[in-house]
Amino acid sequence: MHMKQVTVHCPGTVANLVCGFDILGMALRAPYDVMEVKLLDEPKVIIHNRDAFNLPTDPEKNVAGVVFLAVMEKIGGNTGFEVTIEKHIKPGSGLGSSAASAAGAAVAANHLLGNIFSTDELVQFAMWGEKLASGVKHADNITPCIMGGVTLIRSIHPLDIVPLAAPDLFVTVVHPQIEVRTSDARQILKEKVLLKDAIRQWGNIAGLVAGFTRNDHELIGRSLEDVIIEPVRSILIPGFDEVKLKCKEAGALGGGISGSGPSVFMLSKEEDTAKKVEAVMQSVYTRIGIEYNTYVTTINKNGAAVIG
Amino acid sequence: MHMKQVTVHCPGTVANLVCGFDILGMALRAPYDVMEVKLLDEPKVIIHNRDAFNLPTDPEKNVAGVVFLAVMEKIGGNTGFEVTIEKHIKPGSGLGSSAASAAGAAVAANHLLGNIFSTDELVQFAMWGEKLASGVKHADNITPCIMGGVTLIRSIHPLDIVPLAAPDLFVTVVHPQIEVRTSDARQILKEKVLLKDAIRQWGNIAGLVAGFTRNDHELIGRSLEDVIIEPVRSILIPGFDEVKLKCKEAGALGGGISGSGPSVFMLSKEEDTAKKVEAVMQSVYTRIGIEYNTYVTTINKNGAAVIG
Repeated sequence: MHMKQVTVHCPGTVANLVCGFDILGMALRAPYDVMEVKLLDEPKVIIHNRDAFNLPTDPEKNVAGVVFLAVMEKIGGNTGFEVTIEKHIKPGSGLGSSAASAAGAAVAANHLLGNIFSTDELVQFAMWGEKLASGVKHADNITPCIMGGVTLIRSIHPLDIVPLAAPDLFVTVVHPQIEVRTSDARQILKEKVLLKDAIRQWGNIAGLVAGFTRNDHELIGRSLEDVIIEPVRSILIPGFDEVKLKCKEAGALGGGISGSGPSVFMLSKEEDTAKKVEAVMQSVYTRIGIEYNTYVTTINKNGAAVIG
Repeated sequence: MHMKQVTVHCPGTVANLVCGFDILGMALRAPYDVMEVKLLDEPKVIIHNRDAFNLPTDPEKNVAGVVFLAVMEKIGGNTGFEVTIEKHIKPGSGLGSSAASAAGAAVAANHLLGNIFSTDELVQFAMWGEKLASGVKHADNITPCIMGGVTLIRSIHPLDIVPLAAPDLFVTVVHPQIEVRTSDARQILKEKVLLKDAIRQWGNIAGLVAGFTRNDHELIGRSLEDVIIEPVRSILIPGFDEVKLKCKEAGALGGGISGSGPSVFMLSKEEDTAKKVEAVMQSVYTRIGIEYNTYVTTINKNGAAVIG
């Protein structure tokens, strides 16, 4: 028997934010997934896909499924969930596709259960989805997906979430249709880094956080520099250096790899600039001969939205 | 012939601010140096000491002297400076004694010359003093000494100074009278650090900057953690671990090594707590048998002050 139903829009997210590797994330207005979730009065999870990605429907192997199971384990009793997932954020794009499913499941379940969980608890539930997807319980996509805006994960153990002010900026994203596996992107990172590079990085992070807080676009631009992760990971993304250089020439404040790639994002002050940046991205990948999607969007300040 | 004279109060400063190694600094209300500076109409620098520290009076070997010389080289002509330095910030305390002299010289010269230089230029002049004192042109004591409050050096090359909001907190400082040479404190640092530690550190820096910006004392407290520098440098400071633990038990939000030590600072919300923290510091160093000075003060939000 279907008792209650809810529709949730789960936004794509940009994790890492250049110098903010593993700690910063940002929600986007586009793309987003749509999830319809019904409360069941028996303890099972039923998953339907309304898209062409052919993701597993076995709850134990589905990112949303394991989150529903974690919620059910927590509350006990005879509650279950039936979900229909309409995914628009491509899996493997680096735009938080798995986080959207995981966060959406947590938000939908919480809404159907009468908002009994805190944000921290929702993040904890949703991290089970990330663990399934990538082997690591990280929260830097989940948190902005749930809360919106720009979020800081100061610490994972214990979980310490700090919502930051989100600047009024336009975001241009290109998703070149190549595969970069999160696990590969993590494996090529060196275990140790030079202290002098780490110092440069934390200067930039401090500048970026200050820039977000005071909506100082120039400071944000100057701080969007990554001397540790990007030099290694950008090798996996054909055209990266050229895209970045030409986007900044076209007026972008700066940007870099979204998550572990292959998507690349750029921030701009004006919509016109953001569209010029899109044209630059399109021309580079057209010439290289790699299929791509682009988005011109803004920062989603509300996070996963319960629609009905 | 003496044309004009000015008196400048140059505050002590806490550089590094726990997780903010090499990028963050904070000015104190106490202790501070007093510098009386006269404009001369011949291109020479005359230095008098009105204290017991026996610092060099040869301008080429004096921290304030080399700053005056740098200013003179910039402006040319027949201008010189005569300075009397009354130092209260003990050299080698880790409280920015050399920075106070360097910054004070730059600020005094600028005032006497009709405020012709920008803050960035003053920092650039004053860095010659730091280069003389420690061999490195660093700005993380100079900048808060000149500007007051909490300052971020996002980058040294090019110089990018970001003043941050200064929280309304009390600062307790203990200076155990042992010698820790800045060069030694730098040499024992490892050239490489674990990426996972760097990530933890930049999460804390982001939290600290956000905490300062919104005057969020709890967030500041949680972010005052240094997993990279303090574990190495604290070995040079007898009693450090005990002082830190007991100060936090007494109610301090947190704290750590001031600059490269040996002074240790703690932040507290209330003056009462700051005084309890002082008593803890005193009892530890009395028991260990090391001479000490303590200060209970607040953050100096104005920086080097021109008095007359």
